[in-house]
Amino acid sequence: MSNQKLFNVAVVGITGAVGEQIIRLLAERNFPVQELKLLASARSAGKTIRFKDRDITVQEATPESFQGVEIAFFSAGGDVSKALVPHAVTAGAICIDNTNAFRMDPETPLVVPEVNIDKINGHQGVIANPNCSTIQMVAALKPLYDRYGISRIIVSTYQAVSGAGSRAIDEMLRQSKQVLDGNEVAPDVLPVSSLPVKHQIAFNAIPQIDKFLDNGFTNEEMKMIKETKKIMDDESLEVTATCVRIPVVYGHSESVYVELKQDFDIDEIKRLLADAPGIVLVDNPAEQQYPLATEAAGKTDTFVGRVRRDLSNPRALNMWIVSDNLLKGAAWNAVQIGEYIAIEQ
Amino acid sequence: MSNQKLFNVAVVGITGAVGEQIIRLLAERNFPVQELKLLASARSAGKTIRFKDRDITVQEATPESFQGVEIAFFSAGGDVSKALVPHAVTAGAICIDNTNAFRMDPETPLVVPEVNIDKINGHQGVIANPNCSTIQMVAALKPLYDRYGISRIIVSTYQAVSGAGSRAIDEMLRQSKQVLDGNEVAPDVLPVSSLPVKHQIAFNAIPQIDKFLDNGFTNEEMKMIKETKKIMDDESLEVTATCVRIPVVYGHSESVYVELKQDFDIDEIKRLLADAPGIVLVDNPAEQQYPLATEAAGKTDTFVGRVRRDLSNPRALNMWIVSDNLLKGAAWNAVQIGEYIAIEQ
Repeated sequence: MSNQKLFNVAVVGITGAVGEQIIRLLAERNFPVQELKLLASARSAGKTIRFKDRDITVQEATPESFQGVEIAFFSAGGDVSKALVPHAVTAGAICIDNTNAFRMDPETPLVVPEVNIDKINGHQGVIANPNCSTIQMVAALKPLYDRYGISRIIVSTYQAVSGAGSRAIDEMLRQSKQVLDGNEVAPDVLPVSSLPVKHQIAFNAIPQIDKFLDNGFTNEEMKMIKETKKIMDDESLEVTATCVRIPVVYGHSESVYVELKQDFDIDEIKRLLADAPGIVLVDNPAEQQYPLATEAAGKTDTFVGRVRRDLSNPRALNMWIVSDNLLKGAAWNAVQIGEYIAIEQ
Repeated sequence: MSNQKLFNVAVVGITGAVGEQIIRLLAERNFPVQELKLLASARSAGKTIRFKDRDITVQEATPESFQGVEIAFFSAGGDVSKALVPHAVTAGAICIDNTNAFRMDPETPLVVPEVNIDKINGHQGVIANPNCSTIQMVAALKPLYDRYGISRIIVSTYQAVSGAGSRAIDEMLRQSKQVLDGNEVAPDVLPVSSLPVKHQIAFNAIPQIDKFLDNGFTNEEMKMIKETKKIMDDESLEVTATCVRIPVVYGHSESVYVELKQDFDIDEIKRLLADAPGIVLVDNPAEQQYPLATEAAGKTDTFVGRVRRDLSNPRALNMWIVSDNLLKGAAWNAVQIGEYIAIEQ
């Protein structure tokens, strides 16, 4: 980055999969860090974590942790964000929150840089990072929205277990081995660790991510519906989602049906996608090329393919959107926001 | 079955996963078999296969194999059906064909007993069994179609590897072990064994089942679109499909968005589904109950859940449909048709 001002940065929730990736990306991107404070629960305090050429001692995250902090990344769960973000804001930090705590707060910008980076100007100290499954979808749909308008989105997801944390990854791999060895499995994390009923994820597809609401949708599905409207700044946008966990480690895939407001040219759509920031078009059926979770894993881009005109509705098309849920879906989107903040200061 | 007439029955393609299930179901259902002829390629001729208390020697399937056969089940691929079904019909057999060879032939009824068993009356010697992913969907949608009318269906599938045959099952399990052991994988079957490019299926989601057409859809997707219209006998029905292979052994899952022609009552929809033949409603979000591939495997029913009113379109709903692709999706649907034929004779 050309900006030479350096920032005191804090990362809250450094033992989780997303926190780890944030620290890695801050180093890799050469984020303008003056001092880096690594914060976690009391249990992890005292550990040391390598950042570039330094060893940094993890401290317990408390309301007093944010004195002098200018940019704080939060990724330790909604309850921690609700408790500590206000203290960080009072201390003068700009908080980039990766939890659900402030996403639908009308005062809080919900930002995917490729879509609405201009919204960071209106922040009141907190900028929310959307849910993983929403981010990749809106990033891919934004060029279509701008060119043609979008009236309806119907999405079915194929979500990786890493979205449910490292215990879910361990469980899926352990269960897979148990099934292969002909042994019984005893699910204890997925679909929702805090709920009583568990289901086998190995060699299965579980149509539940997060808790159910009275309307029959899950929280995850409602996040996709509400966050998409907020990020696109369009309450008239009609969105339906079905969110499904499948036995993949990293990388959410999405089957998306989109109705546009105008007639369109499918080749122009592909060109728009190929030229869009953060989007890689992988769409060559003749060569059997399309986005795959295993190939998106570890990458910061969003991959789009299977782009085809719908046969029944002349204003609709189908597409397949894949991205690493821990990177563009979480850590990378947060660090991107951080980079924009650093430039603006 | 109360019908006491016995039939000379042939099964063509008895070494495949579906053929095996047909033989098992004929025994289990006590199908009125007089003589059972087991036919396969020359390579398998001479093997013996147990059927009830008899050992039956497999014979090579040839144009002459069908003398005296009254009901013949074909499940040895489209090319074998195209070559041999006409000879079987000439010999007087009623052929129940599980391949794609005759499905879209206007003379051939395409039958899912719960939907259009009346069509078997018009057969010209061949009755086609639809594609697995179509069968479970139309079985679940039929009660809604009859009560409210359906204008549009948008489906995304989560399909088991057994749909691509036993080599695909072996590959998926082998790859899973390789990944768990930290070894490289070398895909050589999926997504389509006859095409040059292979992709890893273990811990992945592959948005290709069967070959691509020029319109960007795959054959599997076009089967769902065309077969659904034919089975529902409604060319005005708008259908879109995205078909995806996931690492599940048995049981296809489907995320289905349905637009009805009338306003509806969601509780009545659930009652219609609960009462429908061949359908089991598994839909209790409060208890985290919904259909799962691992629980549908080995069962002949189609399981439906996650039934919920769409929030954006008052005439639409979403549902999750799961069934064993080798049973209701293939062998059981074929044997059901056979049972109706046996009763009619």
